[in-house]
Amino acid sequence: MSAFEKLVKHSKKVSHFQHLYSISSWDQASVMPSGGAEARGEAMAELSVHIHQLMTQPQLGDWFDAAQNESLDSTQQAILREMKQQWQQATVLPDEFVEAKSLAGSKCEHAWRKQRTENDWAGFAENWKEVVALSQEEAQRRADVSGLTPYDAMLNLYEPGTTSASLDGVFNDVKSWLPQMIDQAIEKQASDIVIQPTGIYPAQTQKAVGQEVMKLLQFDFNHGRLDESVHPFCGGVPTDVRITTRYDEKEFVQSIMGIVHETGHARYEQGLPRALAGTRAGEARSMGVHESQSLFFEMQLGRNPHFIQHLAGFTAGRFADATPGLFSVENLQKLYTQVKKDFIRIDADELTYPAHVILRYEIERDLMNGNISYKDVPELWDTKMQAYLGISTKGNDRQGCMQDIHWTDGSFGYFPSYTLGAMYAAQFMASMRKTINVDSVLDSGDLSPIFAWLSENIWSKGSLLTTNEILTAATGETLNPQFFKQHLATRYL
Amino acid sequence: MSAFEKLVKHSKKVSHFQHLYSISSWDQASVMPSGGAEARGEAMAELSVHIHQLMTQPQLGDWFDAAQNESLDSTQQAILREMKQQWQQATVLPDEFVEAKSLAGSKCEHAWRKQRTENDWAGFAENWKEVVALSQEEAQRRADVSGLTPYDAMLNLYEPGTTSASLDGVFNDVKSWLPQMIDQAIEKQASDIVIQPTGIYPAQTQKAVGQEVMKLLQFDFNHGRLDESVHPFCGGVPTDVRITTRYDEKEFVQSIMGIVHETGHARYEQGLPRALAGTRAGEARSMGVHESQSLFFEMQLGRNPHFIQHLAGFTAGRFADATPGLFSVENLQKLYTQVKKDFIRIDADELTYPAHVILRYEIERDLMNGNISYKDVPELWDTKMQAYLGISTKGNDRQGCMQDIHWTDGSFGYFPSYTLGAMYAAQFMASMRKTINVDSVLDSGDLSPIFAWLSENIWSKGSLLTTNEILTAATGETLNPQFFKQHLATRYL
Repeated sequence: MSAFEKLVKHSKKVSHFQHLYSISSWDQASVMPSGGAEARGEAMAELSVHIHQLMTQPQLGDWFDAAQNESLDSTQQAILREMKQQWQQATVLPDEFVEAKSLAGSKCEHAWRKQRTENDWAGFAENWKEVVALSQEEAQRRADVSGLTPYDAMLNLYEPGTTSASLDGVFNDVKSWLPQMIDQAIEKQASDIVIQPTGIYPAQTQKAVGQEVMKLLQFDFNHGRLDESVHPFCGGVPTDVRITTRYDEKEFVQSIMGIVHETGHARYEQGLPRALAGTRAGEARSMGVHESQSLFFEMQLGRNPHFIQHLAGFTAGRFADATPGLFSVENLQKLYTQVKKDFIRIDADELTYPAHVILRYEIERDLMNGNISYKDVPELWDTKMQAYLGISTKGNDRQGCMQDIHWTDGSFGYFPSYTLGAMYAAQFMASMRKTINVDSVLDSGDLSPIFAWLSENIWSKGSLLTTNEILTAATGETLNPQFFKQHLATRYL
Repeated sequence: MSAFEKLVKHSKKVSHFQHLYSISSWDQASVMPSGGAEARGEAMAELSVHIHQLMTQPQLGDWFDAAQNESLDSTQQAILREMKQQWQQATVLPDEFVEAKSLAGSKCEHAWRKQRTENDWAGFAENWKEVVALSQEEAQRRADVSGLTPYDAMLNLYEPGTTSASLDGVFNDVKSWLPQMIDQAIEKQASDIVIQPTGIYPAQTQKAVGQEVMKLLQFDFNHGRLDESVHPFCGGVPTDVRITTRYDEKEFVQSIMGIVHETGHARYEQGLPRALAGTRAGEARSMGVHESQSLFFEMQLGRNPHFIQHLAGFTAGRFADATPGLFSVENLQKLYTQVKKDFIRIDADELTYPAHVILRYEIERDLMNGNISYKDVPELWDTKMQAYLGISTKGNDRQGCMQDIHWTDGSFGYFPSYTLGAMYAAQFMASMRKTINVDSVLDSGDLSPIFAWLSENIWSKGSLLTTNEILTAATGETLNPQFFKQHLATRYL
């Protein structure tokens, strides 16, 4: 057996344990009774340790050295590249360090759940400074090995190949037109009459609508499920993708579009190359590309009136609420495109969302590179919120820098993925429109041509190509924020 | 750390992986979409191998030797005894042998699913002879190490401490009165008028009734769930017990009593000693004792009219079927105690069930001890069915020796657990009635005194005591089939 074959075999072994971890995580979040939490936590921690041990086994270094000199075709080379990158990321941190950061993160996150509701920045900072210090150390260790800047080394965990040099360029471009576009959109919408849901929308009926939406989006129910959880997510494994949503019976808007979003993630997973299953190259490219698929579904398809007409059909007559016009295409379209300057990222609309992300990016970049202190964050947050959205979070850290879970356990470098995904999605759509009449396809109700394009250009590639290679092959160029600007201008101005 | 402590720590590690295996098995049987089966099978096989490797690690032998000389209290000694027995059972077979038997069993079971429906004994025998040969080899290997007869060595996997010498005595006693009692009961019931369900009983409503029954039985929903599967079972882990049932909308009888049965298993699991979690001593005593709890619930409680009055209350008025008297206590009681000589064990009533088990016991005993050949089984089956139940399976192996899954993968030694469980349950009830007025407690609707007795005498003991020790401590004697006979006579004669 060649070294390359040994590596692939080992990778498949690891993936079997990751499979079980994914399913247990889904179970934990969506069906496990609360009394099962403690024992489950212990079992999953044991499995994590085991996976980490497998991923850092000493003989892997020798195999990677040997495989480098073996005769491999281009696919095998890509598989090797991805396995090696994953191995390097797994081995760069000593076990004691991983454990120390994990403990500090758990402690901070746990306390944060209460501190946030109490707007207790001082209490939070007490734990968080340790998380920040350990994350800075992690960033430096990763930088030492990769030759990147500390922040870029963290960014590479979520969007490999992206640098803050390129992100600065892209986000500065967005900042040059976004605030004005937001103001214009709000002014334009000021005279809109939007009928809000005021009835009761039973969860069972919302679920039935959600399932119809999933069928329209060709979710493969033979390889997946829809369930419920407090925080919607897409989990499981490519042959068995578990998406979840949350039903609020006072409205139907969020659950339905949440399902559209998660179905985008799910179809990417379901469409990954089966032949490469069990190797890193058979997995999704990056967090950014993953988000590009969920946002392609949610923003590029889901908020297109030619798609919304189907939502109107699925919802009309199904709920007792008979407010005239509530379920019309025009009203649903308005409900789904209302622009509002507000504090909370996860509730933000499509247009203001990038402002929330850019603000976080700038702060976490400077924090990881050691240019600012954790103490500076509340004031910086307030200043940037005022600059980008014109609202202040002074003394309101609960709705400011304490609102997200990401930083509480040290997941620095994650936030840009959201807006990179939105921009990739807009660029994919612009390219798709060159060969596909998307609106007609949506009208037809058979969305196959759209999915064939996504499958060919993105899903089937797994991680064989880099993000830039995927973008270039699919759209003729690397990330260009003009497509995103054009998309937003068309929809909101 | 003492050798004993090292063993306990290792045992807890193994139990964490077993936890994940249990949850994945539940998932596979009750919620997994069929397209996920192949990858799941691979992942679970990998986990099985890992668990087996952990359980047979070379250093364990040294630790067991060393622990033998350490100063241990009586609880620790019981923990050590159970760990050692489990280790010996895990190490007695070489890995290649385990794999060979597993492969032969899978092949035979898979083909059997079709061969059974086609009544294809010849085709089945072709695969099964290999399973029998390997099982005989397993029995001999286990016998060599344990000093037991080959069959007893297999029996010990399911009901440690029981021998065929004792089973022969007990089952011969049963055989001396059971056939006659069956005939008498059938004659007595001949003039009964039983109203059969003829309506449609929606699964959702059956589930709601099932949940009420589970509440009455004090199932802890904070540490468990009720779901659906093709074959009802009780799975999960003690802190998160997953029971399943199956709904047939043409009747309600089976799903409800199936839930009673599985709740018996579940409460045993939920009642195991938490302080011993992660060690074998904290687990259920044996298959026989486990079945004693499910049958205590199903037969001793569930078919008692003082319990059935609650079922009548839960069902009456809930279903559209308004056949007068269908949901009366008297009619439900008749539905649940109808005696019929028939072919299929899993459909058998309480009274004929032991005949099905004794027949299987006698055949598998002689097969494992090498006294008969696999070729003799169809004829022996027919002869014994005629002797015990007066019906012939000649040429009808589909409803004869090919009906069960147990033997297809070589699980010889399992069948006696069912009837041992039924007999233990009757003996427990007779003892419980000495201090508790069971019928009054059932009337009251608060069954706590019954569960307190079971908890104190059985659940809380885990595997600290042997089966005989549990029986003696709870009832004053070891297994005595007279309690079972008395119970059946009271109910059926």
